Amino acid sequence: MTDVAKLAGVSQTAVSFVVNNTPNAGIPEETKQRILAAIHELSYRPNAFAKNLRSRRSHIIGFVTDEIATSSYAGKIIQGAQDAAGAAGKILFLANTGGDPKLENDSIETMLEHQVDGIIYATMSHHAVTPPEVLYEISSVLLDCYDEERHFPSVVPDEVNGALTATRVLLQEGHRRIAFMNTVDAGPPARGRLEGYKQALVEYEVPFTDDMVYYGESNSDSGYEQTLHIMQREPSPTAIFCFNDQIAMGVYEAVRELGFRIPQDIAVIGFDNLEIIAEFLRPKLSTMELPHYQMGQWAVNYLVEHAESKELPEPLQHLIECPYIKRASV
Amino acid sequence: MTDVAKLAGVSQTAVSFVVNNTPNAGIPEETKQRILAAIHELSYRPNAFAKNLRSRRSHIIGFVTDEIATSSYAGKIIQGAQDAAGAAGKILFLANTGGDPKLENDSIETMLEHQVDGIIYATMSHHAVTPPEVLYEISSVLLDCYDEERHFPSVVPDEVNGALTATRVLLQEGHRRIAFMNTVDAGPPARGRLEGYKQALVEYEVPFTDDMVYYGESNSDSGYEQTLHIMQREPSPTAIFCFNDQIAMGVYEAVRELGFRIPQDIAVIGFDNLEIIAEFLRPKLSTMELPHYQMGQWAVNYLVEHAESKELPEPLQHLIECPYIKRASV
Repeated sequence: MTDVAKLAGVSQTAVSFVVNNTPNAGIPEETKQRILAAIHELSYRPNAFAKNLRSRRSHIIGFVTDEIATSSYAGKIIQGAQDAAGAAGKILFLANTGGDPKLENDSIETMLEHQVDGIIYATMSHHAVTPPEVLYEISSVLLDCYDEERHFPSVVPDEVNGALTATRVLLQEGHRRIAFMNTVDAGPPARGRLEGYKQALVEYEVPFTDDMVYYGESNSDSGYEQTLHIMQREPSPTAIFCFNDQIAMGVYEAVRELGFRIPQDIAVIGFDNLEIIAEFLRPKLSTMELPHYQMGQWAVNYLVEHAESKELPEPLQHLIECPYIKRASV
Repeated sequence: MTDVAKLAGVSQTAVSFVVNNTPNAGIPEETKQRILAAIHELSYRPNAFAKNLRSRRSHIIGFVTDEIATSSYAGKIIQGAQDAAGAAGKILFLANTGGDPKLENDSIETMLEHQVDGIIYATMSHHAVTPPEVLYEISSVLLDCYDEERHFPSVVPDEVNGALTATRVLLQEGHRRIAFMNTVDAGPPARGRLEGYKQALVEYEVPFTDDMVYYGESNSDSGYEQTLHIMQREPSPTAIFCFNDQIAMGVYEAVRELGFRIPQDIAVIGFDNLEIIAEFLRPKLSTMELPHYQMGQWAVNYLVEHAESKELPEPLQHLIECPYIKRASV
């Protein structure tokens, strides 16, 4: 607010009058416009957590997502949010927008009209987002995503540590030629997991070589094709760390076709813990779990705690651990 | 209302006064209690479609589900509902209750307080339900479920025709020894699909024998175990019709282990079109699609159309066709 006042050449009180739309404040229209321009230039936004202006709470938490509700993935985010909301005596209302900006905006506007206590803005996969403008008007938490400006608190999986753990599991079993089947989709999961893979190799003094990292689509077909290719290496890897469980599903197909056994001839570890796949592959797939449930829970708890407080919490990014789910493929 | 009046020994006008809570109607408390008891006994409920009392519409449609939003299944129901709501200028707010009666009730109560235009009550799989009492207070459509009393309109998959089509596909390819791997979960899908399977056999004059129908859990492990058993028959089946795609996933594993090829040695057809499985099995799985998207669309369209009308539509059950998705396993 100091910066806005300086840039507009007015007092902080004048800025406060304009921001809060104080009636009969007697600010000339020209001054008001100058203040608004300065606000715009500096992207000053009153923090909704601090404002806490509404006296009537609806005890509804709005949950806006691109496609968690409609997809086969990440449904436990909603489960975790639901359970935390229930424990706090709140009702969770969801809007699934498919990422459509107009629908997203309309859904949030409608939630505001109905006086929701706060909004959780959740994406199906971990990436940077540009939150819709209207989200700045209310206490909001980003879930499985974050804004580059770090205006909003967010909760995401600890990708680096997840991959570190996965690779350690393989190293502990004695593997030294470990392929990493990464995704071509650039972003925090691909970057973070590569970093974790490298850290584990350093711990065990195994030299990192670029040609043990493969990039492909994050689906079963890609896992299949790449495995046929990888297993022709001399010497071939004894373990494959897969970016996700769907890639692992394709790895299984190829390994079987080549006449190898899992885990005797080659160990496989996945990521996600997509149970519909991991539980039913033969042998069952050992994998790292994305902490969907815990992220959903954390986001609601954070919102409930801070929506009631007059304090301005630091926008922060909270990382949640990805636990190792041991089954039978390592 | 005639029945209520008769049972309580009062005029229809008196019943109407009590039902509509007419002020200053001068009904003695004792008479009122008798009318309420008669209503309870006869389960008379004023139809919310006909009432249409609320003048203010919120343009929100409430969508209450047991676990569609959190599970890996049936997400397209929400997609279809979402798209139809968008086309009608409505916002869809979802509540995922896990089937918890209190949460279900609280969610619906909150939706009523916020003046939703109507409610869709949707389940993850097709079965009979006892809708919560509060649902009788507003225009509601049951989706992928129905109430035994047929008080509410409902939309469900045409199970019989789906299985008829699936079995015909196999018969048309020349198969005559077709095993049906059904589920032990009694209900409309198991009953309807068995019926459709039988009808197709009759069409092709293939005798039905009980021992070609197997009952197990509807998952991959069960499909695997049963296939090992089935394929020991002499003569063994040349085709397997699976209750769902997860069973088919297990069938694939067993068939491969036994050294047979799909579809050359044995044809496999699934049900559901759960793409995360059907698209990525090798060969890709031919299957019957559950019309999730279309059911979601239909429910919203029906609600929008009739919530505006003063007419009392017949409670009805609308069946939607399950289309055949041809891939490579037949």
